[in-house]
Amino acid sequence: MSFDEIIDRRDTHCAKWDKMEALYGVPRDEGIAMWVADMDFRPPQVVQDAVQAMHDHGVYGYFGDDSKYLGAIQWWMENRHGWKVDPEWIFTTHGLVNGTAMCVDAFTAEGDGVVLFTPVYHAFAKVINAAGRKVVECEMPVRDGRYEMDFVSWDAQMTGTEKMVILCSPHNPGGRVWTRDELQGVADFAKRHDLILVSDEIHHDLVMPGNTHIPMAKIEGITDRLVMMTATTKTFNIAGSHSGNVIIEDPDLRAKFGGRMMALGLSPNSFGLFMATAAYSPQGAAWVDDLVSYLDGNRRLFDDAVNAIPGLKSMNLEATYLAWVDFEDTGMARDEFTRRVQEDARIAVNHGPTFGKGGESYLRFNIATPRSQVQEACDRLAKAFADLQ
Amino acid sequence: MSFDEIIDRRDTHCAKWDKMEALYGVPRDEGIAMWVADMDFRPPQVVQDAVQAMHDHGVYGYFGDDSKYLGAIQWWMENRHGWKVDPEWIFTTHGLVNGTAMCVDAFTAEGDGVVLFTPVYHAFAKVINAAGRKVVECEMPVRDGRYEMDFVSWDAQMTGTEKMVILCSPHNPGGRVWTRDELQGVADFAKRHDLILVSDEIHHDLVMPGNTHIPMAKIEGITDRLVMMTATTKTFNIAGSHSGNVIIEDPDLRAKFGGRMMALGLSPNSFGLFMATAAYSPQGAAWVDDLVSYLDGNRRLFDDAVNAIPGLKSMNLEATYLAWVDFEDTGMARDEFTRRVQEDARIAVNHGPTFGKGGESYLRFNIATPRSQVQEACDRLAKAFADLQ
Repeated sequence: MSFDEIIDRRDTHCAKWDKMEALYGVPRDEGIAMWVADMDFRPPQVVQDAVQAMHDHGVYGYFGDDSKYLGAIQWWMENRHGWKVDPEWIFTTHGLVNGTAMCVDAFTAEGDGVVLFTPVYHAFAKVINAAGRKVVECEMPVRDGRYEMDFVSWDAQMTGTEKMVILCSPHNPGGRVWTRDELQGVADFAKRHDLILVSDEIHHDLVMPGNTHIPMAKIEGITDRLVMMTATTKTFNIAGSHSGNVIIEDPDLRAKFGGRMMALGLSPNSFGLFMATAAYSPQGAAWVDDLVSYLDGNRRLFDDAVNAIPGLKSMNLEATYLAWVDFEDTGMARDEFTRRVQEDARIAVNHGPTFGKGGESYLRFNIATPRSQVQEACDRLAKAFADLQ
Repeated sequence: MSFDEIIDRRDTHCAKWDKMEALYGVPRDEGIAMWVADMDFRPPQVVQDAVQAMHDHGVYGYFGDDSKYLGAIQWWMENRHGWKVDPEWIFTTHGLVNGTAMCVDAFTAEGDGVVLFTPVYHAFAKVINAAGRKVVECEMPVRDGRYEMDFVSWDAQMTGTEKMVILCSPHNPGGRVWTRDELQGVADFAKRHDLILVSDEIHHDLVMPGNTHIPMAKIEGITDRLVMMTATTKTFNIAGSHSGNVIIEDPDLRAKFGGRMMALGLSPNSFGLFMATAAYSPQGAAWVDDLVSYLDGNRRLFDDAVNAIPGLKSMNLEATYLAWVDFEDTGMARDEFTRRVQEDARIAVNHGPTFGKGGESYLRFNIATPRSQVQEACDRLAKAFADLQ
């Protein structure tokens, strides 16, 4: 398979391409969809084969015996991340928005504070607010063009009503792969303020060459307050299967979480189970290696082009396919640079403010699309901001 | 397609066939699985085509624009059930166990009582208990060989701490299709005791000839406390897609429910959406007509054979494919008749007591399997209880 193949996703009930006109006014026929975080690629053949096999059998009844599925997760975490997982630690939620929400539900009460290092994935704040908890935004400073931790300021911000912190690792947006020191810092911060630490590692497989992702579970002394979240959906582009894993080693936290899973009657759909079992395999791994190398090429193309436009700064992605571009130095108002991207360049993007404090002057561009489209987007951006040259 | 075709579901991660040995000691190689409520049939071709189309497109990203999906539900309810549904009333949950649990979560508080007319589908009690609510069992009397309502006794049972009643309509197990008078009685009961009424109508399409299902939504004066639940999963045998609909006309109840859906980060998987859109169609309807006629044949075969065994009584199914057999008159202890069914006849069934009060002397047999297997099960039962002849 080739990542260069352009697959027309219009009229396929695809959120990214089919809703950009209604939501952003970017025309469906000639717009480029770079917002929703899924990819315009097919999953590996082994996943396609699993779907075909389900179809050919044709009886889509209740799923039983998830030992192969759990074994595949175990294999992946050990072989790709050096992390030993016991099948008993694994819960399957309906994707990680549901996973995050279940953590908030299980481990905090109404009115409690939940700490986010912003700017960060917008759905976190959405579920925290919807659950009647309080979002506590700890803004990350940008130093040397990348996000960093600032525990001294954040310590001063804590009031004692905070009960949880959600880390995005690798970070979306901005693409940081946190160092061991930074992760240890987050763990210490969680301990210092007696917080449950939820580590959303959904991007852990999409790490650019030269960087190494460290699972939070491998940081010393944090297990008793740690919840790990991973998924096949981002890695293999199967978000439609709405499947994610919440992995909890601590027995008390696990019992609490499991109780809420049962009370909410949550059990996984078989498509997600079959696809994940197929994906977490040597064939899946080989595909991910190819994918990451392709994304790395897209990233370099995009960054070079965008950074060549005076006033635009694309953050160096250590991971993820979500380029984070700062328009601050254009001197333009947010409405103006956003209008130029959407109206002039006809590119649908995510708006910075939805990611929380610190996102105000940014737009997020999804570069997981065939390279020719990344190139086209770059050309359009150059034109839309040609007056800055 | 033929419902007579035997599709081997062993080794397909099928709960019903692959877990019967571990759970009931019924041997996988020569046992007959008649427990879990799914069918051993493929869904209609139009659903198969939808899965094939998803595979052939191959990009399984985030789903967008559910207007066709909602339109299909609307079409089905109006054309098959004479019930006009506004798309705005529809929530998609992860199947109806999750749907039930979300109702309990949204509309009751810890310690509240939730009324069930027992014996009834076991998952209701499971989620109620897991959520820290109290199951209030109102036992249905059997009169003239069928379950009936007994509001006079149930009125006396109420303590004022009850906040919800869950009706199973048509009823599982026992297969009652409730009359308009009975439904009005349930509505009045709910009003009298100020209860939210959740009407689980998952079996509404599987109604035997000569019976007519009436949606609770068509009963007068109940809308402001009513939650309807329906699904494609039972009708079309696609339970693996874990998709269900909670349909709420009342705006206040809807806002409450919607708030909890958002707080729990629940959104549907695309397989369920595509399959449901395909299923709720004229082609799907024609298939359901054929299915029901086939199930009716199975039911008559099974009932005739079972009722010919002295001491065994199979309840007359007005709906569902779940035969409910009373062993009371065998004079045997529960362990003994269960042992004969599982060990001698090698049939895996659901045990009556899990359905609550009134289920003690019963076993539930799933007859949604090719007729030759129903026949084989009948032959084995006759042999296992031959000494009663």
